Amino acid sequence: MDPETNRQWLLSSRPTGEPSMENVELVETDVPEPGPHEVLVRTLYLSVDPYMRGRMRDVESYAEPWEVGEPMRAGAVGEVRASNHPDFSEGDVVTGTLLWADYAVAEGRDLRRIDPDRGPISTALGVLGMPGVTAYFGTTDVAEPTPGDTVVVNAAAGAVGSVVGQLAGLAGARVVGIAGADEKLEWLESVGFDAGINYREEDVTAALREACPDGVDVYFDNVGGEITDAVWPLLNVRARVAVCGQIALYNATETPTGPRKLWKLIETRARVEGLLVRDYEDRWGEALDRLSRWVESGEIEYRENVVDGLENAPDAFFALFEGTKIGKQLVRVGERSE
Amino acid sequence: MDPETNRQWLLSSRPTGEPSMENVELVETDVPEPGPHEVLVRTLYLSVDPYMRGRMRDVESYAEPWEVGEPMRAGAVGEVRASNHPDFSEGDVVTGTLLWADYAVAEGRDLRRIDPDRGPISTALGVLGMPGVTAYFGTTDVAEPTPGDTVVVNAAAGAVGSVVGQLAGLAGARVVGIAGADEKLEWLESVGFDAGINYREEDVTAALREACPDGVDVYFDNVGGEITDAVWPLLNVRARVAVCGQIALYNATETPTGPRKLWKLIETRARVEGLLVRDYEDRWGEALDRLSRWVESGEIEYRENVVDGLENAPDAFFALFEGTKIGKQLVRVGERSE
Repeated sequence: MDPETNRQWLLSSRPTGEPSMENVELVETDVPEPGPHEVLVRTLYLSVDPYMRGRMRDVESYAEPWEVGEPMRAGAVGEVRASNHPDFSEGDVVTGTLLWADYAVAEGRDLRRIDPDRGPISTALGVLGMPGVTAYFGTTDVAEPTPGDTVVVNAAAGAVGSVVGQLAGLAGARVVGIAGADEKLEWLESVGFDAGINYREEDVTAALREACPDGVDVYFDNVGGEITDAVWPLLNVRARVAVCGQIALYNATETPTGPRKLWKLIETRARVEGLLVRDYEDRWGEALDRLSRWVESGEIEYRENVVDGLENAPDAFFALFEGTKIGKQLVRVGERSE
Repeated sequence: MDPETNRQWLLSSRPTGEPSMENVELVETDVPEPGPHEVLVRTLYLSVDPYMRGRMRDVESYAEPWEVGEPMRAGAVGEVRASNHPDFSEGDVVTGTLLWADYAVAEGRDLRRIDPDRGPISTALGVLGMPGVTAYFGTTDVAEPTPGDTVVVNAAAGAVGSVVGQLAGLAGARVVGIAGADEKLEWLESVGFDAGINYREEDVTAALREACPDGVDVYFDNVGGEITDAVWPLLNVRARVAVCGQIALYNATETPTGPRKLWKLIETRARVEGLLVRDYEDRWGEALDRLSRWVESGEIEYRENVVDGLENAPDAFFALFEGTKIGKQLVRVGERSE
């Protein structure tokens, strides 16, 4: 049964350092009415992602910051409850950027229909959504692993890292994953990673040296900070570094500092390049086609960590910075209609 | 008149921090005898270059370190005094990697003949030598300026920077040079730079903002450190950073630290790439052909700072780190025979 009123999370203040419940507020509103060309969507799953920490800042970056007092946005999967757009009907399952809310109204053109018979609909937020597509283009277009390469990926049990590592394995590379729990490393090994490093338990520098006796040809960086410092000295000639995330720095209250890194690039002629999935909007279909086939064949496996209830969405988001969960972090908000 | 004995500079100890006269020693030896396939060369000009500081360290990098107690090597132009190699005769003017010495013996295959009628022979160590070729490939293959781009280059009045800026200008870019003296900036303006920043006199961050109202599309970095920190926030989407040198850090005694820089690459999807001219050995002729034509036509101008006397070679080298000289820093060691 859908609720008769709507709840939505607002950004109530900008965090300093770690975001907390003090920065968000749950408010109740009427269920919104779709205007012309708009669709009313009942949220089924919300995605919480590290990039959202950037939206909480009052700094213009590659996307607009969220406004204080306004609803927070999120990638979501939902079901259409009312439609003023010819492409969508009640009961359609759709995905798009919606709100941390029970309901949201969206322009039809901003939604994409997904086929619930092809697999779990939540994958549209993970392996067959933004994180999977990020991993796909980050691997094929930026990191470019080739057979025999040693590839190091961190946040390796996360939504992006786990796909990157498996794609690099499909490309014939030797894959070393860095993650924060033995349980994560066991899963990664089971999906084909060649070696794993538990950065909470091991000396990362020593462990990397052991795991990468021939150096590092590709480094896929979701984390930054000290883990990146440890990988850097191992970069090989013509190494590629794909910079996808820097979650270790997102909660910093002062400009993070560390060892200067550019000299190593002269020594190695390595290439370091930033990655933003938005640049690949016109090739999204290509990535989804391939990822879907690999998921169906079992060549790419994925994990999801589902938190129940919109009221728990902030905790699910905060947990990203603790790094304790395996796979895509999701919030289950509602149920499909019968 | 050639000297009847030979003097050569040895590395007598490895410097800590700034190199000084305590780290080098001038010794007298017999004039060496060329063996089979070898050539005896009287040194005319020696090149001193920032990369030599790296050779003084006991660290394997992209080239072997110099050994303590052994002669120091240098790019040089000289004249053949005796030859056991069929391609070279007495009186030929040649260039190659020789020694900080009055005389050196080299394998014929390691020398290249230069035509003294085509222009000053010293240019084989500067605009038509390693620095010019570095600038050429760094610009065409790494930095890739296009018309309308804003290009920032530092050590802009140096042997590499001055050529980079002029090449970027030929490619239709707007060129901003950073250098340490108004006299340098005046010269750069006279050879086509669009703006100049005196990093010793100006607030570099503020001056860059004024000189680059549309941000920075290409950053050619010879210096590193705080100047690079000031350029970084201005990088545009899809900017290219060519890392050619980091002279600000070469005398560091501890691991240099600074603001972390990778996050900005996600925001901009900028590409940062190291550059080493050695990678372009098989295309050296292409670069020299083009640079020669531009030099002859006056489209590329150059300056040299010539220090007289082998005994002054260390001072000429140390001066590189003071950044007080304009253009290619050279040492005149001997005279051509009549």
